[in-house]
Amino acid sequence: MTLPLPIDSTDANRLTNVQQTVDQYLKNYLDAQILEAGTISPRYERLWQAATRLVLSGGKRLRPYMLLLAYRSFGGTDESKLIPAAAAWELLHVAMLVHDDIIDRDDTRYGVDNVYGQYLKQYQDLPDVDRQHFANSAAMLIGDALIAEAHRLLAKSSDDPLLLAKAQAAFSTAIMHAIGGELLDTESSILPNDGLAAVDIARHKTASYSFAGPLRAGAHLAGADEVDIEALMKYADSLGIAFQLTDDLLGTFGSTDKTGKSNDTDLKEGKRTYIIEQFNQAADQQAKSEFYESFARQDMTSQQAERLRHLLTKAGAVASTEQAISEYAFEARQAITLLAIDDVYRPEYIQLISLCVDREK
Amino acid sequence: MTLPLPIDSTDANRLTNVQQTVDQYLKNYLDAQILEAGTISPRYERLWQAATRLVLSGGKRLRPYMLLLAYRSFGGTDESKLIPAAAAWELLHVAMLVHDDIIDRDDTRYGVDNVYGQYLKQYQDLPDVDRQHFANSAAMLIGDALIAEAHRLLAKSSDDPLLLAKAQAAFSTAIMHAIGGELLDTESSILPNDGLAAVDIARHKTASYSFAGPLRAGAHLAGADEVDIEALMKYADSLGIAFQLTDDLLGTFGSTDKTGKSNDTDLKEGKRTYIIEQFNQAADQQAKSEFYESFARQDMTSQQAERLRHLLTKAGAVASTEQAISEYAFEARQAITLLAIDDVYRPEYIQLISLCVDREK
Repeated sequence: MTLPLPIDSTDANRLTNVQQTVDQYLKNYLDAQILEAGTISPRYERLWQAATRLVLSGGKRLRPYMLLLAYRSFGGTDESKLIPAAAAWELLHVAMLVHDDIIDRDDTRYGVDNVYGQYLKQYQDLPDVDRQHFANSAAMLIGDALIAEAHRLLAKSSDDPLLLAKAQAAFSTAIMHAIGGELLDTESSILPNDGLAAVDIARHKTASYSFAGPLRAGAHLAGADEVDIEALMKYADSLGIAFQLTDDLLGTFGSTDKTGKSNDTDLKEGKRTYIIEQFNQAADQQAKSEFYESFARQDMTSQQAERLRHLLTKAGAVASTEQAISEYAFEARQAITLLAIDDVYRPEYIQLISLCVDREK
Repeated sequence: MTLPLPIDSTDANRLTNVQQTVDQYLKNYLDAQILEAGTISPRYERLWQAATRLVLSGGKRLRPYMLLLAYRSFGGTDESKLIPAAAAWELLHVAMLVHDDIIDRDDTRYGVDNVYGQYLKQYQDLPDVDRQHFANSAAMLIGDALIAEAHRLLAKSSDDPLLLAKAQAAFSTAIMHAIGGELLDTESSILPNDGLAAVDIARHKTASYSFAGPLRAGAHLAGADEVDIEALMKYADSLGIAFQLTDDLLGTFGSTDKTGKSNDTDLKEGKRTYIIEQFNQAADQQAKSEFYESFARQDMTSQQAERLRHLLTKAGAVASTEQAISEYAFEARQAITLLAIDDVYRPEYIQLISLCVDREK
């Protein structure tokens, strides 16, 4: 497949440029998948349409952007060859979101119905329990297919078998960590605390596959080795944690209009985010007992959720989370100075930090 | 990793030999995964232990066997190099089983707790709804990880990038069809009949990834091209359908002792198998109304299930399914004569048919 849009490295707004290129590539790829699925059955075609609708409804394509940034800054010269790898990372991300939404019992994403939400409507004639079960099943299946398709795209990312093997290893390691992080995140809401810090969960769940993975893969595809990318991994780790902590804040304090998701979900699911950890450390007994009366309840009213937000803010948990985000962002910024790259690329690494932490509530 | 056991091509019982070799390889691989997961968290280690327990509890390793058979018979000479690819196909299969069990709301497989079943016990302190939800989540996550790991193993199956690309394409195509087949199979129980025959569902759900895929990949890795494997694909298609129809019969008429699964599940889930299709064609109105009073009900008693089995047999649905199995097995046998392989390999292809259709009830 040829590139629909050239990536102009002098473009002031590279993220938008990458976004358009990757979106166009994904659209063509998914259109082909829809066609192929249609040769099997119109029902399968519908499943791919549901996935395509979700993929094209949102997403800043940060992972593709990072993969390409690392590739260029570590000396890669033919960026157009990496679009399939960039798109692969995005498909993996969508697969993880689709499955994450199943776990979180969410039916929207990017402000639209996610795959589960779309299938809830398709299966509206079924009794409720079956309807939810089979809508989840459809979402699970398309996530599986997207994981597999992401591998297929990644396999197209280099003609050099050794570089390709390194990129694939980065991809596999990222998935191994992301699944572990997802499990830890889930179990932190339902099992007694085993001392695992929210930051460590963020490291595995987010920093690994959303930051370390694409940056590592991009650098490897440009020929960088382990030693070259040590500082890059430090950057990825700090930035990934800053990103996840920001996400947690937005998840509970952001407006649904901006985030495209309900801001009550994490509270209802009882997610042990960094904010909750801070609350547990700072709040007094009375605030805690009021908080835990309604926290982690699926039947939480929006009034109760509002009250929980108030308690979190009052105990200083929001302020200390914001403080932690600043500190991780600062660490990421320091790591940039150690990167063995041409100075011309450093501003983009700095700008990326802003993109991750200065998101609108 | 070196091969723990040599594969002796003169061995009379090659399937057992392949089984032992692949089991040993999988065990070593999964032990390494458990260790790696343990570096992330003991909780993640437990998830990999649950998967390992399931992988090593059963499975005839038919897919690895087929991959190796196709490789040898199409001229491949270094079988030991293909063990990772063979194991990859088995991991993919286990991932599909784990996710299939979620859809079918089954908690056992191979006569032991599946991953969901194991997590039901781990999460026993949770309220029922949450317990099931999160046990399903854990099972979904490990299935995801297994799909990714299967790709990682497959990437090790050849030093020749072109052959590897063909094997990977076969793998991706197989998954694309398997997911489609799984969706069709699921929707056939819950949506109005759209005219799709059970045989077509079996073709996508089973013949593609369990037969066509591994046979195709093995032949490609030996250097065979599309023209060479045309008859092989005919064999795979017929045998895969014969296998699935046998599976459907065993699923409802086999003993739990032999199959390791409850023989009421398909009836409770309302699976539109070939047997049901035959019943719909052959049974009289009275039998049908009695049948559909309890078919597809989660609260079906074992007495009711027994009665359904009686009705199926009485209407001749079992006999006509057995007849169809014989016909597909015959077609598979005919395809063997067209394979462009040395005669010395034909008996193994014949024996494979028996392994697939003459399974003990």
